[in-house]
Amino acid sequence: MKQIITFGEVLMRLSPEGNKKFMQANLLEFYFGGTEINVGISIANFGEKVKHISCVSDDFVGDTAISYIQKFGVSTSAIARSNRPLGVYFLEVGAVMRPSSISYNRSHSSFADIRPEMVPWENILKKAKWIHWTGITPALCKGGYDTLKAGLLLAKKSGIQVSTDPTYRKGLWKYGENAKEVLSDLISLSTIFIGGVNEINEVLETNYSYSNEDFIEASKELMKHFPNITKIFDKIRTPINASWHKIRARMWNGNEFRETTDFDITHIIDRIGTGDAFAAGLIYGLQSFDDYKAMEFASAACALKHTYEGDVNYATVDEVTAILNGDVSGRVNR
Amino acid sequence: MKQIITFGEVLMRLSPEGNKKFMQANLLEFYFGGTEINVGISIANFGEKVKHISCVSDDFVGDTAISYIQKFGVSTSAIARSNRPLGVYFLEVGAVMRPSSISYNRSHSSFADIRPEMVPWENILKKAKWIHWTGITPALCKGGYDTLKAGLLLAKKSGIQVSTDPTYRKGLWKYGENAKEVLSDLISLSTIFIGGVNEINEVLETNYSYSNEDFIEASKELMKHFPNITKIFDKIRTPINASWHKIRARMWNGNEFRETTDFDITHIIDRIGTGDAFAAGLIYGLQSFDDYKAMEFASAACALKHTYEGDVNYATVDEVTAILNGDVSGRVNR
Amino acid sequence: MKQIITFGEVLMRLSPEGNKKFMQANLLEFYFGGTEINVGISIANFGEKVKHISCVSDDFVGDTAISYIQKFGVSTSAIARSNRPLGVYFLEVGAVMRPSSISYNRSHSSFADIRPEMVPWENILKKAKWIHWTGITPALCKGGYDTLKAGLLLAKKSGIQVSTDPTYRKGLWKYGENAKEVLSDLISLSTIFIGGVNEINEVLETNYSYSNEDFIEASKELMKHFPNITKIFDKIRTPINASWHKIRARMWNGNEFRETTDFDITHIIDRIGTGDAFAAGLIYGLQSFDDYKAMEFASAACALKHTYEGDVNYATVDEVTAILNGDVSGRVNR
Amino acid sequence: MKQIITFGEVLMRLSPEGNKKFMQANLLEFYFGGTEINVGISIANFGEKVKHISCVSDDFVGDTAISYIQKFGVSTSAIARSNRPLGVYFLEVGAVMRPSSISYNRSHSSFADIRPEMVPWENILKKAKWIHWTGITPALCKGGYDTLKAGLLLAKKSGIQVSTDPTYRKGLWKYGENAKEVLSDLISLSTIFIGGVNEINEVLETNYSYSNEDFIEASKELMKHFPNITKIFDKIRTPINASWHKIRARMWNGNEFRETTDFDITHIIDRIGTGDAFAAGLIYGLQSFDDYKAMEFASAACALKHTYEGDVNYATVDEVTAILNGDVSGRVNR
Amino acid sequence: MKQIITFGEVLMRLSPEGNKKFMQANLLEFYFGGTEINVGISIANFGEKVKHISCVSDDFVGDTAISYIQKFGVSTSAIARSNRPLGVYFLEVGAVMRPSSISYNRSHSSFADIRPEMVPWENILKKAKWIHWTGITPALCKGGYDTLKAGLLLAKKSGIQVSTDPTYRKGLWKYGENAKEVLSDLISLSTIFIGGVNEINEVLETNYSYSNEDFIEASKELMKHFPNITKIFDKIRTPINASWHKIRARMWNGNEFRETTDFDITHIIDRIGTGDAFAAGLIYGLQSFDDYKAMEFASAACALKHTYEGDVNYATVDEVTAILNGDVSGRVNR
Amino acid sequence: MKQIITFGEVLMRLSPEGNKKFMQANLLEFYFGGTEINVGISIANFGEKVKHISCVSDDFVGDTAISYIQKFGVSTSAIARSNRPLGVYFLEVGAVMRPSSISYNRSHSSFADIRPEMVPWENILKKAKWIHWTGITPALCKGGYDTLKAGLLLAKKSGIQVSTDPTYRKGLWKYGENAKEVLSDLISLSTIFIGGVNEINEVLETNYSYSNEDFIEASKELMKHFPNITKIFDKIRTPINASWHKIRARMWNGNEFRETTDFDITHIIDRIGTGDAFAAGLIYGLQSFDDYKAMEFASAACALKHTYEGDVNYATVDEVTAILNGDVSGRVNR
Repeated sequence: MKQIITFGEVLMRLSPEGNKKFMQANLLEFYFGGTEINVGISIANFGEKVKHISCVSDDFVGDTAISYIQKFGVSTSAIARSNRPLGVYFLEVGAVMRPSSISYNRSHSSFADIRPEMVPWENILKKAKWIHWTGITPALCKGGYDTLKAGLLLAKKSGIQVSTDPTYRKGLWKYGENAKEVLSDLISLSTIFIGGVNEINEVLETNYSYSNEDFIEASKELMKHFPNITKIFDKIRTPINASWHKIRARMWNGNEFRETTDFDITHIIDRIGTGDAFAAGLIYGLQSFDDYKAMEFASAACALKHTYEGDVNYATVDEVTAILNGDVSGRVNR
Repeated sequence: MKQIITFGEVLMRLSPEGNKKFMQANLLEFYFGGTEINVGISIANFGEKVKHISCVSDDFVGDTAISYIQKFGVSTSAIARSNRPLGVYFLEVGAVMRPSSISYNRSHSSFADIRPEMVPWENILKKAKWIHWTGITPALCKGGYDTLKAGLLLAKKSGIQVSTDPTYRKGLWKYGENAKEVLSDLISLSTIFIGGVNEINEVLETNYSYSNEDFIEASKELMKHFPNITKIFDKIRTPINASWHKIRARMWNGNEFRETTDFDITHIIDRIGTGDAFAAGLIYGLQSFDDYKAMEFASAACALKHTYEGDVNYATVDEVTAILNGDVSGRVNR
Repeated sequence: MKQIITFGEVLMRLSPEGNKKFMQANLLEFYFGGTEINVGISIANFGEKVKHISCVSDDFVGDTAISYIQKFGVSTSAIARSNRPLGVYFLEVGAVMRPSSISYNRSHSSFADIRPEMVPWENILKKAKWIHWTGITPALCKGGYDTLKAGLLLAKKSGIQVSTDPTYRKGLWKYGENAKEVLSDLISLSTIFIGGVNEINEVLETNYSYSNEDFIEASKELMKHFPNITKIFDKIRTPINASWHKIRARMWNGNEFRETTDFDITHIIDRIGTGDAFAAGLIYGLQSFDDYKAMEFASAACALKHTYEGDVNYATVDEVTAILNGDVSGRVNR
Repeated sequence: MKQIITFGEVLMRLSPEGNKKFMQANLLEFYFGGTEINVGISIANFGEKVKHISCVSDDFVGDTAISYIQKFGVSTSAIARSNRPLGVYFLEVGAVMRPSSISYNRSHSSFADIRPEMVPWENILKKAKWIHWTGITPALCKGGYDTLKAGLLLAKKSGIQVSTDPTYRKGLWKYGENAKEVLSDLISLSTIFIGGVNEINEVLETNYSYSNEDFIEASKELMKHFPNITKIFDKIRTPINASWHKIRARMWNGNEFRETTDFDITHIIDRIGTGDAFAAGLIYGLQSFDDYKAMEFASAACALKHTYEGDVNYATVDEVTAILNGDVSGRVNR
Repeated sequence: MKQIITFGEVLMRLSPEGNKKFMQANLLEFYFGGTEINVGISIANFGEKVKHISCVSDDFVGDTAISYIQKFGVSTSAIARSNRPLGVYFLEVGAVMRPSSISYNRSHSSFADIRPEMVPWENILKKAKWIHWTGITPALCKGGYDTLKAGLLLAKKSGIQVSTDPTYRKGLWKYGENAKEVLSDLISLSTIFIGGVNEINEVLETNYSYSNEDFIEASKELMKHFPNITKIFDKIRTPINASWHKIRARMWNGNEFRETTDFDITHIIDRIGTGDAFAAGLIYGLQSFDDYKAMEFASAACALKHTYEGDVNYATVDEVTAILNGDVSGRVNR
Repeated sequence: MKQIITFGEVLMRLSPEGNKKFMQANLLEFYFGGTEINVGISIANFGEKVKHISCVSDDFVGDTAISYIQKFGVSTSAIARSNRPLGVYFLEVGAVMRPSSISYNRSHSSFADIRPEMVPWENILKKAKWIHWTGITPALCKGGYDTLKAGLLLAKKSGIQVSTDPTYRKGLWKYGENAKEVLSDLISLSTIFIGGVNEINEVLETNYSYSNEDFIEASKELMKHFPNITKIFDKIRTPINASWHKIRARMWNGNEFRETTDFDITHIIDRIGTGDAFAAGLIYGLQSFDDYKAMEFASAACALKHTYEGDVNYATVDEVTAILNGDVSGRVNR
């Protein structure tokens, strides 16, 4: 079985238990995460072979991060080590009308040491069938951008699928590159676009609205600029408040517009990593099902992620499928 | 005051805190439970005298189980000890569309050593007014079946009430007996049937639907086969998802069909043992109220159990009655 | 910046984690609180200078209480010490139809040692612009009543605003004074009345209903008896159950009746101190906004408090304002 | 089997986990204790029948205290309820050269409501063979003194053994009685004196030193004043620091002076209740062994208590005996 | 690098935090362990390739056990799954003169399903250089004995090293085989004997004392009976109490008797698995050093294990070597 | 009362509970610390007025750090905020022969943004009587060095005492300055030297041994080079292992050599910050006692710090004095 490659920073997440403010706590729970490793682990939980590429600290924190990733069977053989510390983020979990808050400590972390020569792309891609990247990586540091680009160029040559979740976060772009140019450069090397009108407007400098009509137009426009892109998937979150969301998705694959119904997540356990669960669901689904079924699978995976603590989606294919088959009754499995 | 007798395995329940997957935890909370002891403790919390019959391990785990039961004032003098270990079950608590999962370690536990000669039924029943049994006990082991039958035969002779929750779980019947025959044998010695169309179809090999009409027909049919049975109570659970259920109940007492309205349990704290809380509510209620009021009391008790952590219903008669009187406002008691 | 003065008992709150019954726990979380200090800390979190007057125990518990209050920047220089222990309350947190329960250990606590001569009112009021008191303080002990009255008399002379939340709790009035007389005495020295028909009926011995019409009539009647009172604010709580409430407010300021819309608190994290958050919101709001906007601010602050663990409202002005501006989407702040 | 009676206040103990200062914690562990109930529970763990007499709060805290005591099989049928709160003590656990600290909240607790007419001494003593009291009880409140004296007078008449641990704590004597007189009054009704030179000096206003010679003289003098006293046992603690103690004991029984060797407690887990474990060991031992063996048993029980968390000695007779037989090797029992 | 093979049951260990009695807890910490997997993980932590053979439950508990083992890089590809539950042991941790206690729930666990045909010994041994077994495995069940013997026969043929820790625990031998015969059978296929006079006396039915002279004689006698055995290593534990041990070792390799000095473990953190750490140290050391240096390495590894919580020795070669070089100063590594 | 000024980085400390390896944990305890703030808080606990100068992150982590410092009454008004994250260190706590390990994440933290113009030295020193600095600050970043030097120059002019703990840690000096030169530069502005032969050898490039004779010679040599230095204090740690240390101190004040006896810390609770407690003890002691008594006070304070969890010394003057007076008996304070 060929591998799926994810590439990006691994962060340690630290948050007080329950809904405590940081100031109320003296104990923190920790998990490891990061948008791309979240995708990687979720795909591994679907039964695929996954290799994650990153650079982590050369201390007991980095050892623990690697051990954490290995638990899920994701290959860590391409994770480099640096004597800078691992990136950390602190999370305060909100509720109802109180939003969650995140504070990052990542800008000089071990991942900032990543360099193209640290990643043996040729060897890696020989055994690979898919690469996934997000807009976080080229935003973090020049090394991230260069290393990613080196991989994508090679991937294009080899005809490997390249999916992107080009999430644009303005605050991250600090090292001197122009976000629009860098993202365009990398999107042009990609085949699956996981994002919506927001991201398209950012990259194309357009002004489409959220309507389905505009989504279709925007998608067509995107494909015109990036002819490599064959499919566009957009997850739509309708929040009632921080504790209760509805999730659905829509797609344009060049021929067809489709939309799922809503999943009603009445009691959110953990909101972090749910977008990554959607991306992972798509990457798995597009290899197994038709486009619409893949999108449904991804939406159900995303919905299910809201019920797991931590960044990672523990759901298996059987568990996602059970939900698609309508089993949301909460019967106890014995 | 005469005693109510419960008979069955005591299990240790072990689960990660909150909604953690087993794989995410390194600490487990423990409680003791088991369908019959849950019923027994709940009835004791209603102020009745209760004696539980069982066989637990002769080690510090068994000591702790007995100590746990004694806390509620349930008599443990008829609990035998065995050098086999206490049965254990592991629980992962789900949320929203993620179901909870249970893994049992009970098939060679101390309860499997139970033998009729270990239980002085004659002495026990002299001071008893009611026995409650469930379909789990005869399913677990031959000793459980034999011991239970010895008690029920004596109970019938003495005119003691016998209630049954004949829950049929296929996976448990492994020691060679035929479930249908065994259950029929024991139901024929019982007077109150706590179960619905599912259980009746299983025992009578019929095909009734869930409609009220079919429930009445099925109940009449059951009473024809088991003329000892005088009343049938059926709890109906309408799940929105694993975190949000509605509960109501219906009954047939030979003369009258009645149905309660729904209790809306919008934020389930713990789903385990809620059926046992219903049975306990009935056993208490049928001694104090008319059939319909007893069923209402049982439904409210069942609803209230969803708000307590662990297997056990802590609700008192006053607390259940307050809910029946419409006090669900969440006012703080000071 | 002039100070806002709060005066009242500081209690230690002790409760099992999650929704555990006391009997299920062997660990208790602790917070410090008390209706007036809750108001004081919340106002300090809005950026005002606050001084709290109280009397706490002269041991490591009292040290910890003072340290807790100092964390929020509230001045503790006017907190006396006594060799009696700090008051304690135990809390069991309910859910859905199970109410929370509180057990107090406060009647001979350090606060009962408070005497007028322990509080340098003249000095304190020189730097003050507002005093807030509640009906709990004069109910607890004669020293509380006397000390409070001494302060209010001086405040009236100096033209300082005096707000009151005259909460009447019958069980507390044990030391021999007549509640109606004492409360009337103190209300006559106050300018802002935070309470509704219940409290007015108690003080005036009237029988108004909850209708808006009666609220207006009752308010007019109250102002007739206590011409010092210029504004009346009434918070209305509509509980679906113990886990789900709706909150709105109404007001009469002598000229105008206004009413807010409901805030829907679908997943209550902690219900204690939410009324205090309303009072704090009003005290802050009335200094910054018009009456209606102040009431809206107070309602949003009250709603937001339901999402924090402990007695204290951590919300800042920006966070409350964001909710008033309609941002209840639960977007993660990064 | 006749009962052993203990009489005294039940307190809730609250302490941060580990060696945390109160100010560092936000979680407290709780246990129930109190010098006399500690003795009672320890004796019950030795297999005796024990009844404890007290007065606890009529709330969920008192319910939990009673449930805690019942777990050990100690009869709680003579425990009265009061609407005052249960006494509480806060504990900071020291280490090495840092002493532990205790802050009490007990002076107006439910036990202060105890009155002679609440205790049916006649009925209780009919089934009793031994009463144990300590100097804490008459120090706390007049009701404690009166109730205790009523019992001791009756006990003397019936020839029941009365042991006393007359611990003198000056800070507790606040309600107006003279400690020396009250203690003398009660010691004159007792038969076994568990205390040393300190206590004798206090009661007789003498000045004996700690030497064995003086101990013998002091004991003779005490017996002269209180001819009812037949045996005196003195536990000697040699602290290296707060984490490491040595324990031995000496005795005078009118004829013979004996002394045990030291038990070396190199790693103290919990120091509270160790004196109570000594008293309990004596009460058990004097009924089963000769005086010296009883004192050895008590010393070993006391030493063993230092290894249990909480106030209570969990040691069984077998476990104490194993230590007396020299088994301190720390072999794991499988 | 060729693999080292360990074979044996994987157990879940459950114990209260700190030194709590089971009866005092409501939370349990869990670890996975078992004498052979402890050895395997420790060797993997020394940098060797290790494969563990076992049979674990086919549920989320078994999944978690496998995930736990994988974290250390030990290959789990030869671990079979069974629908019986995973074995469990409960542990109460003692202190000072209080011994620790273990209660097992393993006799009908998933490991009891092991059968020779489930283990592809030929393939496994092709890539192996060493097998380690203990006396626990043939004691547990016939399947364990048969499977082990199949492997050892093949190992002998291939000239692979076979080390044994023949720990004899009488209580485990319940399935009908004769311990002495079975152990002799398997020892005759082994090359390294990790055990002392006790084990030799058991197998040879001799009566040697603990003196060094007798150890040498016993070793010679053992080698006479089992000419395959080339080296004998004996770990000697001198307990001061349950919290403080001294550890040293001695050896006879056919030519030479040697003895190490004592390691003084003044504050034991966790005693479980320390013998396994000694065996692992030997297996690693004998491949890298001369016999005496290997024994020293093993003793230091064993000593170091007493400082890690759980069953597993986390020590690396560098950390063990640092101790051998005399660095026991507790300097903080920064 | 004039203030004592401390200046340096505030770090968040994160460590698993107990003696767990990072890899074993999923919960971390947190404290705030840093060598200079540790000194500052300890002095504040001795009753002095203290102001700490630093630069912390402008997020909820920095808010929490400031709130933590305020709890001890240390002034935080001169703490700047930066949009870089707060420095973090991870700690694994060792035991016996296992050393503790620390992993830092501080090199691009908020403190690296400190600049001389951010600190109003003139205003601060007007109200100051003492500045304390350590060798960590100039090692971390140029801004730290520059800011510190600006302060020390002014302090020298104003005749304010300047104490230094010039701890040399090679790994920290990365930003291009020469450690020896920088340290010499700053020591020449200081009056009290808290360090020993190691530090003197580093700065003077000498080779003195640890003997008392060499210590005196080295001290004289140091004073020759830095005539501003009037007193030198050297703390000597004699570790038995990581859990058991002995502490004493020696001094040279130009006239007199003195040495304390050893404090025996048989059970270390927390080793971090013990050197800082010594420095704080000196700074307090030199203002209150003669040199020898000050050194004794500092040694006792240092010893006592080993019994508190976290970086901070909670000891008060009374508590330190009690130890100096020989009260190490572990009597419980009631």
